[in-house]
Amino acid sequence: MNIEAVKWIGGPNGVLELIDQRRLPTGFTKLKIRSVEQLYDAIRTLAVRGAPAIGVAAAYGPLLALQWLRGRPSFPEALDEVLRSCDYLATSRPTAVNLFWALDRIRAKARQVSAAPRPTVRQLREEILAEAHAIYRQDIEMCRRIGRNGAQFIRTGSGILTHCNAGALATAGQGTALSVLYEAYRQGKRFEVYADETRPLLQGARLTAWELQQAGIAVTVLCDNMAGFLMKQGRIHAVITGADRIAANGDAANKIGTYSLSILARHHRIPFYIAAPSSTFDLTLRSGREIPIEQRDSQEVARCAGVQTTPDGVAVYNPAFDVVDRKDITAIITERGVIERPSATRLRAALRKVGKGVNS
Amino acid sequence: MNIEAVKWIGGPNGVLELIDQRRLPTGFTKLKIRSVEQLYDAIRTLAVRGAPAIGVAAAYGPLLALQWLRGRPSFPEALDEVLRSCDYLATSRPTAVNLFWALDRIRAKARQVSAAPRPTVRQLREEILAEAHAIYRQDIEMCRRIGRNGAQFIRTGSGILTHCNAGALATAGQGTALSVLYEAYRQGKRFEVYADETRPLLQGARLTAWELQQAGIAVTVLCDNMAGFLMKQGRIHAVITGADRIAANGDAANKIGTYSLSILARHHRIPFYIAAPSSTFDLTLRSGREIPIEQRDSQEVARCAGVQTTPDGVAVYNPAFDVVDRKDITAIITERGVIERPSATRLRAALRKVGKGVNS
Repeated sequence: MNIEAVKWIGGPNGVLELIDQRRLPTGFTKLKIRSVEQLYDAIRTLAVRGAPAIGVAAAYGPLLALQWLRGRPSFPEALDEVLRSCDYLATSRPTAVNLFWALDRIRAKARQVSAAPRPTVRQLREEILAEAHAIYRQDIEMCRRIGRNGAQFIRTGSGILTHCNAGALATAGQGTALSVLYEAYRQGKRFEVYADETRPLLQGARLTAWELQQAGIAVTVLCDNMAGFLMKQGRIHAVITGADRIAANGDAANKIGTYSLSILARHHRIPFYIAAPSSTFDLTLRSGREIPIEQRDSQEVARCAGVQTTPDGVAVYNPAFDVVDRKDITAIITERGVIERPSATRLRAALRKVGKGVNS
Repeated sequence: MNIEAVKWIGGPNGVLELIDQRRLPTGFTKLKIRSVEQLYDAIRTLAVRGAPAIGVAAAYGPLLALQWLRGRPSFPEALDEVLRSCDYLATSRPTAVNLFWALDRIRAKARQVSAAPRPTVRQLREEILAEAHAIYRQDIEMCRRIGRNGAQFIRTGSGILTHCNAGALATAGQGTALSVLYEAYRQGKRFEVYADETRPLLQGARLTAWELQQAGIAVTVLCDNMAGFLMKQGRIHAVITGADRIAANGDAANKIGTYSLSILARHHRIPFYIAAPSSTFDLTLRSGREIPIEQRDSQEVARCAGVQTTPDGVAVYNPAFDVVDRKDITAIITERGVIERPSATRLRAALRKVGKGVNS
């Protein structure tokens, strides 16, 4: 997979390179992010999106903040700047928990440096870079493992429906839901992927179709409202999506529309899979009801690809996510293994397996 | 209701005036249709759309055909032209049965004239105009009756979800599904309407929102994939849509996405209503499986409001309609009364009630 959605170039004084996902599929450009404010905007406006990719990108943010400190800052000044930039970036988007998880790792690393005898700014920079790189590398490895763990669920000759983009563009690696498809394909399985276009921002049509096409995997784009009819015709044999936050009981928030798909899949007795790393789990929330749902600008709905489609003055509803009930999830595919029929007990057991370190 | 989607101006040599629905909501223009070819294009490209409106518009088509006959045509020449124009217009769109129903009425009228002693071209023109006008007036009356028959299902304080446009723009009168809402509103009921934007051609965002706004009824536009999440939150108390063809057992074809809504409504125990005139019933088809489903140009999906959103070369799925199972329909609201829990027996009984004349 040679799609690099997020990549740090250089040392502590380097720059963060992002594929500008707002311009795909008709334009392919890379953004060089040189400040925390630029990074905040890139996350907020979805130049970089996808829960794991947001986490990786944010992890490098404090390094950019440090580059803008004037003169020769003291260690306390630098530490303060790191923590402030983490707090700031944490307000960029509310639903995906990987963002907070990655920033927490950076904060913890910064505090660890500060606890050492005679900490230096240079140490701080280097340790943060090392930690961000670790998150980046672990993300790539996480993607591979999710692919290997999930490929068993994909059969030759089947039709697989996916929603939004949970691919290479949503991670530092080869994706979550799409990693499962890439791995199945690598194993020689042949299948048809159906990609919901995913209004309002069309990540399915623009991004999923684009990266599957790059990978040579057959893909058909449909409008979100066509998925049920495909299921009724027996053309869908599995649904697989990513997740932005998974509560302790297994309820999973994902791109708006995923809830409807889960109900339609249940009705048609089609297995419904979520593929997500353990960094997506938020065990502090008992159920999906506690997951905060981002409401986005009404103009995303009132316009379609930038063109006004709704009359001026008409109200618009635009939640960015919804929540799938754990009972409608056949299995959650993680880098640590597969959690079938998810429940609080099964989740705890699965996450305990490899010690308490996340993504270890 | 002062929205006139379809209106004939003048006598037999008149012109058909259509609101150009491709330009709404940012542009309001009227088309003057002067030939059958222009009418065919207007139907095909959805300048005029909605099963009843297509039927009414097509009924006037043969008059336009007669205007283009050179010299002083003989009666057989004129009759032939009428029948040929009916055959031609019948190929414009395959799913809505009202089109065929209206053209059949014109054909029958033409044959009736030809059976008279010494029929004249003038008689033919006048009788066809009278029949088209009758279809037009009956459509307006049908809309009013559907509104009156359905208003009982709308309660103050409720949230009503609708899909596509089954309003004044879809008929010669005040609509089918939306007529129910207009009538309930006139009766003093106050409620919130949620309009699915209805990809790919956005009739909900562009047309339903526009005409409800004109009528002063509160409306909120949402993307199609958000409806399930609204239902889950308890904000939808009824779903009401139109239909393009209803089979003898009560299965109903309507705009793509209606099937998914019916399954989501069933899951959330929300009543699901279809509002349609008896001209939408096709008793020659035993079930919805026999209803032909129009597949439309992939560019409608690959572009969003004209802007390319899907990579070149990617396959696209674009059925214009799907079919709701009769078991998922709480009631079909017609101008002749309400058919609850529709079945072949109940449909036959309801359609027999007012004699065999349709729309009588």
